[in-house]
Amino acid sequence: MTKAIILFAHGARDPDWARPFEHLRDEVAARTPGVRVVVAFLEFMQPPLADAIDALIADKVCEIDIVPAFMAQGAHLKRDLPRLLEAARAKHPDVRLVLRPALGEAPGVIAAMARHIAENRA
Amino acid sequence: MTKAIILFAHGARDPDWARPFEHLRDEVAARTPGVRVVVAFLEFMQPPLADAIDALIADKVCEIDIVPAFMAQGAHLKRDLPRLLEAARAKHPDVRLVLRPALGEAPGVIAAMARHIAENRA
Repeated sequence: MTKAIILFAHGARDPDWARPFEHLRDEVAARTPGVRVVVAFLEFMQPPLADAIDALIADKVCEIDIVPAFMAQGAHLKRDLPRLLEAARAKHPDVRLVLRPALGEAPGVIAAMARHIAENRA
Repeated sequence: MTKAIILFAHGARDPDWARPFEHLRDEVAARTPGVRVVVAFLEFMQPPLADAIDALIADKVCEIDIVPAFMAQGAHLKRDLPRLLEAARAKHPDVRLVLRPALGEAPGVIAAMARHIAENRA
């Protein structure tokens, strides 16, 4: 049973925006052998979430973790993302789509950010 | 010489948005005794960056690190933030305002996010 992780990011007009998410994708892939890891975006960048889900399922993936690569939860994660997931679940009823909490809300991630700030001061 | 750190976040209409940044503020403050640590926002939430800077300087802070609590660098950090900083530096020429890279671009933070994702899969 092939599994996948989608890193779901906001997206921006500036192409540099995508770089840290690509870096994160590579780091996650290195830690999850056998799992497909891809980046998808809410807007401005390719692919949108729906296309990323369709492509993985066309490649025989049947379980997908969706990890919002957001600092916090606002309307994008509370309103836009659930709608996108609802549509994807209706289209692919046999695939398990699991929504994870926003990365920036994870205590371990917050602690790492705090350590980074404390160690890199003026 | 009093120092401060401003965690500069996007802001949102949803009040829940602010919580992880408040959590981060507390974690940074615990690791940087004697340093004032505050959160400021680009839009929608209080205080805006300019007000946070003014308030710290009124409290005798003379060196401020500004840490963008953003996942990546787009127009907000490349265009909006430099303009805000330029205005603040013109208004407070005796205060050292140091701009840090976006948190989400720090290799240590990316590694922590990747670890968190790999350890919390379906």
